Amino acid sequence: MDPDAVAKAFVDHYYSTFDANRAGLANLYQEGSMLTFEGQKIQGSQSIVAKLTSLPFQQCKHNITTVDCQPSGAGGVLVFVSGTLQLAGEQHALKFSQVALF
Amino acid sequence: MDPDAVAKAFVDHYYSTFDANRAGLANLYQEGSMLTFEGQKIQGSQSIVAKLTSLPFQQCKHNITTVDCQPSGAGGVLVFVSGTLQLAGEQHALKFSQVALF
Repeated sequence: MDPDAVAKAFVDHYYSTFDANRAGLANLYQEGSMLTFEGQKIQGSQSIVAKLTSLPFQQCKHNITTVDCQPSGAGGVLVFVSGTLQLAGEQHALKFSQVALF
Repeated sequence: MDPDAVAKAFVDHYYSTFDANRAGLANLYQEGSMLTFEGQKIQGSQSIVAKLTSLPFQQCKHNITTVDCQPSGAGGVLVFVSGTLQLAGEQHALKFSQVALF
């Protein structure tokens, strides 16, 4: 399968899970996973999901603008995502970007 | 040395080289390096520098807003940078973000 297609499928799955069932993101992280969120480093699937589910908003919708991916050596893939995050009840969407290495 | 300090030093060196002597970035890439630039994948130090030196502006100044880094396995470091790019003669700075894996 084309690496770009794999990356795109992963990104779609990640953000649709984030928006529909944030706790379900636990399946997309492992014990060795690390999330850096606005400068804070968080290690392990359970801690990462605790952080993401404690963010001060409930309903949200991510809209993806760009997905760039490239091989990262040893069969890995590096994905860079940018887009907007619309929060329920807010007029303006927030811009976000995120990197995944898997 | 602290990984965050290494990442910060690398980022400072990269962008000060970009702004002062863009061709000097060749030393910071290898033959196996890949740059994805606005969706275009470019492989190898020489091709990457050819791309960067052919961008349609000369004098520029990067200002770094955030540097996030985390270990990427096998002794590697993943760095995420955001900031602004001021072009000579332009009133408004551009926003940019870039990821490095090394």
